[in-house]
Amino acid sequence: MSEIIELNVGGVSYTTTLATLLQDKTSLLHELFGEGRESLAKDSKGRYFLDRDGVLFRYILDYLRDKALHLPEGFRERQRLQREAEHFKLTAMLDCIRGERDARPPGCITIGYRGSFQFGKDGLADVKFRKLSRILVCGRVAQCREIFGDTLNESRDPDHGGPDRYTSRFFLKHCFIEQAFDNLHDHGYRLAGSCGSGTAGSAAEPKPGVDTEENRWNHYNEFVFIRD
Amino acid sequence: MSEIIELNVGGVSYTTTLATLLQDKTSLLHELFGEGRESLAKDSKGRYFLDRDGVLFRYILDYLRDKALHLPEGFRERQRLQREAEHFKLTAMLDCIRGERDARPPGCITIGYRGSFQFGKDGLADVKFRKLSRILVCGRVAQCREIFGDTLNESRDPDHGGPDRYTSRFFLKHCFIEQAFDNLHDHGYRLAGSCGSGTAGSAAEPKPGVDTEENRWNHYNEFVFIRD
Amino acid sequence: MSEIIELNVGGVSYTTTLATLLQDKTSLLHELFGEGRESLAKDSKGRYFLDRDGVLFRYILDYLRDKALHLPEGFRERQRLQREAEHFKLTAMLDCIRGERDARPPGCITIGYRGSFQFGKDGLADVKFRKLSRILVCGRVAQCREIFGDTLNESRDPDHGGPDRYTSRFFLKHCFIEQAFDNLHDHGYRLAGSCGSGTAGSAAEPKPGVDTEENRWNHYNEFVFIRD
Amino acid sequence: MSEIIELNVGGVSYTTTLATLLQDKTSLLHELFGEGRESLAKDSKGRYFLDRDGVLFRYILDYLRDKALHLPEGFRERQRLQREAEHFKLTAMLDCIRGERDARPPGCITIGYRGSFQFGKDGLADVKFRKLSRILVCGRVAQCREIFGDTLNESRDPDHGGPDRYTSRFFLKHCFIEQAFDNLHDHGYRLAGSCGSGTAGSAAEPKPGVDTEENRWNHYNEFVFIRD
Amino acid sequence: MSEIIELNVGGVSYTTTLATLLQDKTSLLHELFGEGRESLAKDSKGRYFLDRDGVLFRYILDYLRDKALHLPEGFRERQRLQREAEHFKLTAMLDCIRGERDARPPGCITIGYRGSFQFGKDGLADVKFRKLSRILVCGRVAQCREIFGDTLNESRDPDHGGPDRYTSRFFLKHCFIEQAFDNLHDHGYRLAGSCGSGTAGSAAEPKPGVDTEENRWNHYNEFVFIRD
Repeated sequence: MSEIIELNVGGVSYTTTLATLLQDKTSLLHELFGEGRESLAKDSKGRYFLDRDGVLFRYILDYLRDKALHLPEGFRERQRLQREAEHFKLTAMLDCIRGERDARPPGCITIGYRGSFQFGKDGLADVKFRKLSRILVCGRVAQCREIFGDTLNESRDPDHGGPDRYTSRFFLKHCFIEQAFDNLHDHGYRLAGSCGSGTAGSAAEPKPGVDTEENRWNHYNEFVFIRD
Repeated sequence: MSEIIELNVGGVSYTTTLATLLQDKTSLLHELFGEGRESLAKDSKGRYFLDRDGVLFRYILDYLRDKALHLPEGFRERQRLQREAEHFKLTAMLDCIRGERDARPPGCITIGYRGSFQFGKDGLADVKFRKLSRILVCGRVAQCREIFGDTLNESRDPDHGGPDRYTSRFFLKHCFIEQAFDNLHDHGYRLAGSCGSGTAGSAAEPKPGVDTEENRWNHYNEFVFIRD
Repeated sequence: MSEIIELNVGGVSYTTTLATLLQDKTSLLHELFGEGRESLAKDSKGRYFLDRDGVLFRYILDYLRDKALHLPEGFRERQRLQREAEHFKLTAMLDCIRGERDARPPGCITIGYRGSFQFGKDGLADVKFRKLSRILVCGRVAQCREIFGDTLNESRDPDHGGPDRYTSRFFLKHCFIEQAFDNLHDHGYRLAGSCGSGTAGSAAEPKPGVDTEENRWNHYNEFVFIRD
Repeated sequence: MSEIIELNVGGVSYTTTLATLLQDKTSLLHELFGEGRESLAKDSKGRYFLDRDGVLFRYILDYLRDKALHLPEGFRERQRLQREAEHFKLTAMLDCIRGERDARPPGCITIGYRGSFQFGKDGLADVKFRKLSRILVCGRVAQCREIFGDTLNESRDPDHGGPDRYTSRFFLKHCFIEQAFDNLHDHGYRLAGSCGSGTAGSAAEPKPGVDTEENRWNHYNEFVFIRD
Repeated sequence: MSEIIELNVGGVSYTTTLATLLQDKTSLLHELFGEGRESLAKDSKGRYFLDRDGVLFRYILDYLRDKALHLPEGFRERQRLQREAEHFKLTAMLDCIRGERDARPPGCITIGYRGSFQFGKDGLADVKFRKLSRILVCGRVAQCREIFGDTLNESRDPDHGGPDRYTSRFFLKHCFIEQAFDNLHDHGYRLAGSCGSGTAGSAAEPKPGVDTEENRWNHYNEFVFIRD
């Protein structure tokens, strides 16, 4: 079983052991390299020949060696690799490829906050810090829950129905926008766009207890995160 | 037909079967590797020689093996590959390359929404959720229909003429901006830019029934999506 | 002339024909592989040896085979390739490299529009569609003309002088921002940034005939496009 | 010890010295290539065979040669490399990979500033320069300190507790936003998004000593930086 | 000196001439391949062996052939290449690598402008063109001067001190933002983010001579450029 096998996969050389090639018992590789392998086609250097893409076979061998799927970050041949795994009838590897996609479905989440600044008694010259009144979370229910877990407040959302529906009524229990960003980043979302807007002035006086300057600086910033 | 053929394509080695090379009966490869192949030029190692780019031939062979075109995501040599397919007279493959481009023409769609927030009786302290009054869809008519299908409302668009014209009068039947983003993303569009703006204050009192605070927070956010 | 030539270019193997190498009569390759080629240096495997970069020679051979320059999209070794073409005295290829750059000079174009929304008699609840009053085009005169052609209105630009000057006085004859974006995209520009702003309120009443609500929603969105 | 060793790692050839392979005394490579190496499997060309990924072994050898980890910028196979290092029991290399990640944890920092312009006596026609009243820093305490060091003012932050908590109450001791950007850039953060907003008009007169025009141009610009 | 030398650098084959290898007289390569080269280690194919990274040696050879450093655009192994140059004691090449970085230090420049539109007598219906009142330049003094040269106005900057300090008091002598962008682009800066804001309304009447509509459309757009 530790016999060394030299392969020519579509022109690219690979070297591995018989044990690695036979690892998945229901695969085409097991079928080919099992008992009757001496009748397989060989190239002019005596290497077993497979008429498939030579580059992607690197990840097939990787999977067989480690029984786990570890693709490069930003790997761009996922669909092509799936086709190769299908060809080789690598059922467990296919489950990994599909499972990885199901566990991290592509899609969009938007995060918005209404904010202003805390001013002291002396107005502008005495500004204290940024003040966020609420972080809004909008998108598919299931993804919002996946990302924000216990920090998600669903109390304003009347319909606790299917997790595939969209909502724009979730918000967070805390007011740290960077924590929300980190949560999104940890789940594979990247910031794709952002936009801000202020509020309009009003002929009316602000309500009692509302600081005039704080009221003027009110703004809404919105951030679009996308997972590919 | 299962004879193994070793190729030297511009210096890169490939190995395949005769059946694969003869798969497209009207191609130059069929012509070359059909009956008279023994007279073809060979390199010093006895491999059949083709004076073409060695790297792109990987995708030519892929196509011949699977009779389907599966290029890496973000593939950047599409134009160069087309030239190779033309050289080899691979008509069906050329149809695939062109068909793929026709089915997903490059271009731009903008999505905008006018929004504010739902406030409760106690004003700012009692904000409920984000409120979108309408999602506008602008761009080429055909692409808008491709992406949004049944969720597109065309009732404000007076001219149901050619699908190649541009319109800025479509909107969506729902108010979930993330669903619109997901639709665009599913069709290969990426968010390229975004901008927001608020409204101006007015000397006039808001109309009866309009919440003053909600009125002040009105904003227009616009998102530009591009498909390469 | 159909003799097969095996090359070792800085350690990378290439195989081509004598005809391909002699294609450009004034090049160094013609000089080297013309009559006296038997005296050229060979490596230990009998391949003709060239002491140049092995990777970029791929595109040199491509050019010689097709007499046309087709580089990968996003190719990042253009300057390095030019150096190789200079070394090999490939005058026609150099003209292609330079001509391609001259035909598509790098630079920036900004597109802006002032817009609002068409409202019906019942105000916000009856909004009709996005309304763009004018699409402004700013940048180098020559590039603006290249991109927008007949759709460009130059009537506000007093100086019809040199095409290398910058102007911020062009606008478009139509009001479809997506069409402008598509034009830019077709000419190799990508959206690099965007920003929006609203208008300030005013103590004065809007002029007669101007809808109050439309007036409040006025905004200016600006988009920066760059061609590398 | 300067014996040359030729390796076949999953089909990719490497050549190195015995001394390099034995460099880490507790590694699997030391175990394999120590005394009993003559019994190791060899391929058909007599090269020692390792049934692992051939591409990533480049960085394993690099590490052994230099006893330091230098990966390409934007390297996308970090997780895969870690797996290889684990397989080869390269403890010191694993410490490097993990230490590098711990020293530069991924995450988000936002920088915002409230700004306007300095106007002269003649108003708009006499604007002097951009005026930033304060640069706000928000994010994880530990990262804010790592980046801004002595230029960070923590006086508004009441809780000097754990460095893992988030704060939105830090600001900078200087008012040069470009210096803040440079600091972030130097620490591996990139600008991922930005948004701006103005202030609302007010029925009230500005306070004495506040320039009316400066007051009108007040804006808040916010920049999101992310480290992958 | 035109002797052909075949090398095995960490498993990658290179072929070059003795003259190229001896080009830098103080380098390790000169030392190794000078008189005593027959005693150097050779691999099983008789190629001289170097126990270093095989991929980066491509640029080492390039430098020796051309005595100039030409790296691919967006090259991501600069730090790793420097390490190789240090190993081979290629002093002149190291000077090139360092000099290139010193000549184009990474960092950030922000460009902002205050703008509005020129309106005619009939107000909105008669808008003429975009009007920029001033382009502000902020960042490190040395970089601002490098990029904008004679078009930079430093008259508002009181301190003509060290070029390493930051300033937010420079502006341009012209009002073409696209020209400023082109200057930045030509110097290797890319647009990383942008944000816009309008002005607040005011209870006060605009000053005499100021167009009301133009006054309302005032905005500040800011663009962040970064050089890696």
